Amino acid sequence: MTRSCGRFGHAAFDVLVIGAGPAGLMGAHALRRAGVNVRVVDQRPHKVAAGQADGIQPRTIEVFQSYGLAERLLREGNQMHMACAGRAPDVSAPTARYPFEVTLHQGGIEAIFLDSMSDMGMQVERPVVPSSIEVSTDEAELKDPQSHPIKVVLKHLDVPEGKVDTEIVRAKFVLGADGAHSWVRKSCGIAMEGEQTDFIWGVVDMVPDTDFPDIRNRCAIHSSNGSCMIIPREGDVARLYIQLTDTDVVDGSGRVDKSKMGPQRLLEVAGKSFHPYKIAAKDTIEWWTLYIIGQRVASKFSVNERVFIAGDACHTHSPKAGKSKLTHVLRGWADISLLKTYEFERQKYARDLINFDKKFSALFSGKPRTEEHQDGVSHEEFLEAFQTFGLFTSGIGVHYQPSAIVNTEHQAHARNLIIGQRVLPHVFVRASDARPFEIQDLLPSDARFKVLVFAGDVVEPAQLQRVQQLAEEMGRPEGFLKRFSKRSVEERFDVLTIASGDKLKVITADVPAIFRSHWSKLFVDGRDMFKRSGGGGYEYYGIDPRGAIVVVRPDGYVGMVAPFEQHKAIDGYFASFLAA
Amino acid sequence: MTRSCGRFGHAAFDVLVIGAGPAGLMGAHALRRAGVNVRVVDQRPHKVAAGQADGIQPRTIEVFQSYGLAERLLREGNQMHMACAGRAPDVSAPTARYPFEVTLHQGGIEAIFLDSMSDMGMQVERPVVPSSIEVSTDEAELKDPQSHPIKVVLKHLDVPEGKVDTEIVRAKFVLGADGAHSWVRKSCGIAMEGEQTDFIWGVVDMVPDTDFPDIRNRCAIHSSNGSCMIIPREGDVARLYIQLTDTDVVDGSGRVDKSKMGPQRLLEVAGKSFHPYKIAAKDTIEWWTLYIIGQRVASKFSVNERVFIAGDACHTHSPKAGKSKLTHVLRGWADISLLKTYEFERQKYARDLINFDKKFSALFSGKPRTEEHQDGVSHEEFLEAFQTFGLFTSGIGVHYQPSAIVNTEHQAHARNLIIGQRVLPHVFVRASDARPFEIQDLLPSDARFKVLVFAGDVVEPAQLQRVQQLAEEMGRPEGFLKRFSKRSVEERFDVLTIASGDKLKVITADVPAIFRSHWSKLFVDGRDMFKRSGGGGYEYYGIDPRGAIVVVRPDGYVGMVAPFEQHKAIDGYFASFLAA
Repeated sequence: MTRSCGRFGHAAFDVLVIGAGPAGLMGAHALRRAGVNVRVVDQRPHKVAAGQADGIQPRTIEVFQSYGLAERLLREGNQMHMACAGRAPDVSAPTARYPFEVTLHQGGIEAIFLDSMSDMGMQVERPVVPSSIEVSTDEAELKDPQSHPIKVVLKHLDVPEGKVDTEIVRAKFVLGADGAHSWVRKSCGIAMEGEQTDFIWGVVDMVPDTDFPDIRNRCAIHSSNGSCMIIPREGDVARLYIQLTDTDVVDGSGRVDKSKMGPQRLLEVAGKSFHPYKIAAKDTIEWWTLYIIGQRVASKFSVNERVFIAGDACHTHSPKAGKSKLTHVLRGWADISLLKTYEFERQKYARDLINFDKKFSALFSGKPRTEEHQDGVSHEEFLEAFQTFGLFTSGIGVHYQPSAIVNTEHQAHARNLIIGQRVLPHVFVRASDARPFEIQDLLPSDARFKVLVFAGDVVEPAQLQRVQQLAEEMGRPEGFLKRFSKRSVEERFDVLTIASGDKLKVITADVPAIFRSHWSKLFVDGRDMFKRSGGGGYEYYGIDPRGAIVVVRPDGYVGMVAPFEQHKAIDGYFASFLAA
Repeated sequence: MTRSCGRFGHAAFDVLVIGAGPAGLMGAHALRRAGVNVRVVDQRPHKVAAGQADGIQPRTIEVFQSYGLAERLLREGNQMHMACAGRAPDVSAPTARYPFEVTLHQGGIEAIFLDSMSDMGMQVERPVVPSSIEVSTDEAELKDPQSHPIKVVLKHLDVPEGKVDTEIVRAKFVLGADGAHSWVRKSCGIAMEGEQTDFIWGVVDMVPDTDFPDIRNRCAIHSSNGSCMIIPREGDVARLYIQLTDTDVVDGSGRVDKSKMGPQRLLEVAGKSFHPYKIAAKDTIEWWTLYIIGQRVASKFSVNERVFIAGDACHTHSPKAGKSKLTHVLRGWADISLLKTYEFERQKYARDLINFDKKFSALFSGKPRTEEHQDGVSHEEFLEAFQTFGLFTSGIGVHYQPSAIVNTEHQAHARNLIIGQRVLPHVFVRASDARPFEIQDLLPSDARFKVLVFAGDVVEPAQLQRVQQLAEEMGRPEGFLKRFSKRSVEERFDVLTIASGDKLKVITADVPAIFRSHWSKLFVDGRDMFKRSGGGGYEYYGIDPRGAIVVVRPDGYVGMVAPFEQHKAIDGYFASFLAA
C-alpha cells in the first residue's frame, strides 16, 4: 500500500539522506546541527556492531572536533602513533593537531553520530529502502532553492502485511551515502571510472596471540611469503590485512569465492609473512572479509546540484565540505550555484587519492626485490611509499584549488595560512582572561564564515589608529559584514580579532566594537600564564606585522586573505556567492 | 509510622552518606565506584540550581580527572588563568596539571557526580532527614569491619500522611557531609574550635554591566572605600565578594540582619570600590547572600573511626583522601586502624588552611595604608598575601606527614617525587605503541595501590639483569605482590614499569612478566613521535639511574620509595596496614 501524506514523517522537507554509514551520518548530523530539516533512511534493520571501517585520519579527527565530537572518539578509539616500518611516526603530517590515527570499529563511529543526533531529537529510519527517485527537469524549479524538485518513493520493510509500507516524499536535496554499490548512484546513471585490480586481500579482526613485538603499531610486513599489514584497534584487538593469491580464493570463473577461504585459513596465510614470529587468535575471530582492491571514482558527484553522492558511493573520504554549502543555500544565504564547488573540490581530491592508492597498492602487493627477483620492490622503495601514504591519507594535505570560494590573490599577507588548506592549529590567548585556546576550537562547523582580523600591535597608537579606520570602513552598510547580514552580523559571520601586542595591555586598548562583539572575541598572540602553550603565531602563520584579514570557510579552510587596504576585495569575494 | 525493614532501601548496608552537597556526593560517588554498598540521603527536595560553591582548585581538578570526570568539568565551567592583582597567573602552583581554577555553580558540580552515580544505578534519596544516630560502644563490634555498629533513624519527608515515613537503618560507617551546621557533628558531640571574626561580606552573582577591563579575571580591589573580590564564572556571569561594615548589616543585638541588605544595595557598596569604573547588573541578580567570615575546624573528624565528618561539616576542602581507605577496610583488605590516618592527615591540612585564611582575611578586610592610616595594609603586603593565598588554596601544596601510609625513609632515590605529596604530572610514552600518557591518567582512583617500577635502562644488559633479579625476588610468595593478593596481583595492585632506555628498543627487551602483566603496562621516559611531549622524566622526578620502586596510594599520593635492594621495606610498609 502507498500513501503520500506524512504517515512516516514529513512528506516534504529539505534533505533526504540515503544510507546511515559513517558518510551519511556525518552529513545528516552536520545538516541537523545547522537546523536543516533532514531525514535519514537506511536499509539495515540495526546499526552495525563490529568490523568494517578502518582508521580515522588526523584531519578527520579535527573535523570531529569541529562538531564537538573528538573527545569521545579519542576516549573510545585506539591511537596509532608509531608505524613500525622504520619505527617512524604513524602519520607524516607534522602540522596535525592530533598527530596519530584513531581506530574504532564502525559501530563505535556511528554511535557517536547517532547519539549526538538523538540529543537533537533525530533518529535514523530503518529498515527503509528507496525504490524510485525522480529529479524535476524544470529549469525554474531547479534554480529555486526553496523548491522540492526530487521525488523519492520509500519502502518501510518492517511494516506488517496489509498496512501502509510505502510513502512518497519530496526533498529539496538528496544525499546518496549508500555505499560502494550505491543505489542512488546507479539510479542517477552515474558511472564509476577506473578499474578493479588483481590484488585480493583478506581482513581479520581478533585479539592476537603473538610474540611479534610490534603488534600495537601500524606495521607492514613485506616478505617473499606474502605481505601483511597490522592495524592495532580498540582494546586488545588487532586487524590484519593479508595478501592472497588467486589460487587461494578465485573460482573457475575468475570470481572471488568466499567459501574457499575462512578466517583460520587467512591466519595460516598470515603466519607465513609473520615467520619466524607466531600469529594466532586468542579467542574467536571478531570479524573477517575478503576484498579486491579497486580504485574507482564516480564520473560525477551530483545531478543538477540536487542529488549528491558521498563516501564510498563516490569514493571520496571526507564528506564534510558539502554540508555547510547546502546549509547556506537552504537558508537563502547563498546562490544555488555555490553547490557546483562541491564536485569541483571533492572530485579532484578523490582522483588524486585514487591515483596514489593505485601506485601504493601495486608496490605493496608486489614481491620484495631479491637475488632471484631483480624486478621486485626494494625495501627503500617500500618504506618511501609507506611514508608518503601516511602524509597523503592523513587528509592534512587537502588543498582546494581556486574557485568562487578560494581566492588566492593576497596570499603574501598571511604566507603560511595556505589559501585552500585548513587553518593550521595554533594556540592563542584570550585577552580578557588569559585563557589559552586552540584556534581550531574557535572555528567550529557552525555554518558561519569566520573573519580573523589579525590586528597587529594595537598597543602601538599608529597601528591602533589603522585598526580603528578599518573598523569604520568595514562597518559601513556596503561592507560585507552589514550587507550580507539581516538580523545581526553574528548570524552569518563570527569576527575574531587577534592582536600581537603586549598581552597585559591589549585588553585596555580601544579595539573597535565591531572587532570584539563580546569579551570572548579578542585574542593575543602570546604565551599562556604558565608559558606552556601559545606565542609566535604571527610568525608561524606568516602574518604581515601591519595586519591582515583572513576569511575562514565554515568547513575550516582558508577562503581568502586581504591586507587592510584591500578589505573591499572581501566584499567582492562574498558578493560572488552570497545572497544579500 | 516507623518500620525497620527495608521499605525504602536496604536496612543494613556499608556506608550511609548524610548530605548530598559536593563533599557528600564526591564521597558517595567514590565509594559506589569502588563497589561499596552505599546510600545517600539529603534533606533538600531538589538539587540546587545556582550560586553557593566557588572555585574548584587545580588539585581538585586533578582529583576529578582521577575519576574520569574532568572533561565535563572543564567543558562546563569557566577557567580563571589570570589574577589581576599584578596580572599574575591565577594559581601559583607551577606543577599543576591544570594551572587554573574552574568556576562552576554548585548545581553544575553536583550534576557531574549525580549523573555519574546515576550511570552506576544509584540515586540520592530526598527529602530525607536523620532524626537519631547511635554508635555501638561494644569494643568487639567496633573492631570488626563487617559489623554494623551504627543505627540511624531516617525520616522521609515526602511520604503521604498515614503511610510509613520512618525507617531504622544499620550501617558499617556513616559519612556526615551535612554542611556547616552539620546535624551529624552536633549529634556526635563534636565541637568546632576557633572563632567567628567581625568581617562581614556580601556575595552577588550576576551578568555585570561594567567598563572595568579585568572583569574576566580573579581580581581583588583594595581601596579606601572598601574591598571587593571579582570571581568570573561560567558564561558571562561574575561573582562579587563585597566587604561590608557593621552599620550596613548588623542589627541592635549584634546579629547579621539580611533584611537590612538587598542585592541592589550590595552593588551600590561595590560601586564605591570600583570607582572610577562602573558596576551594575545587566539583567537580574542570579543569586546573593551575606556571610560572616569564620575560621573554625572540628575538634575531631570521626567517632571511633565509624562516623566521619567531611566538607563544611569539619571545614576541610577535599573529602577525597578517606574514601579509598574505607574501601580497603570494607573489602577486608586493610585493618580498621588504617582509618585513624584520615583524621591525622586531613585535620592538619584543615588547620593549616584555616590559620592561613585567618591571616589573609584580616589583611584583605583591613584598610589600605595611606598618609592618614600608617597602620594600614601596604599594597606590597597585600599582593604577597594574594599570591601566597593562591599557592596554598590550590591544593597542590598538600603534604601528608609520615604515618603508616607515608614512609619517607628512602626519599633520596626519587628526590622530587615528594613522599606525602601527589605524583607530579608528567608525560611518559607507552613502549608498545608510542602513545604518550599523562602519568596521572595512569593513576586513577580505583582503590588499588600503584607500584611504579622505574626500571632504568633495560636495553643495557647489566641493568636488565638487575631488573630480572628484582622481579624474581618480588615475585616470591612472601613478597607483598603475592602475599596481599588473593585472586590476582591486579586485584589490589597495578604494576607499571617505566624504563629509561631507547624507546625503539625497550619493547623488545626482556622485561619480566610480573612488571608488564599486559602490553599496556610498559612505558618509556622519552619524547612522543612528534616531540611534542614527554622526555626527561627521570631527571624531573629525580630518579636514581639505577632504578627505584615508587608506591603510589590509591588517592594519587606518594606512599613510599625504595631502591631495588630495599624492596623488602615495601613488604613491611604494606604489612603494617594491609590484611594478608
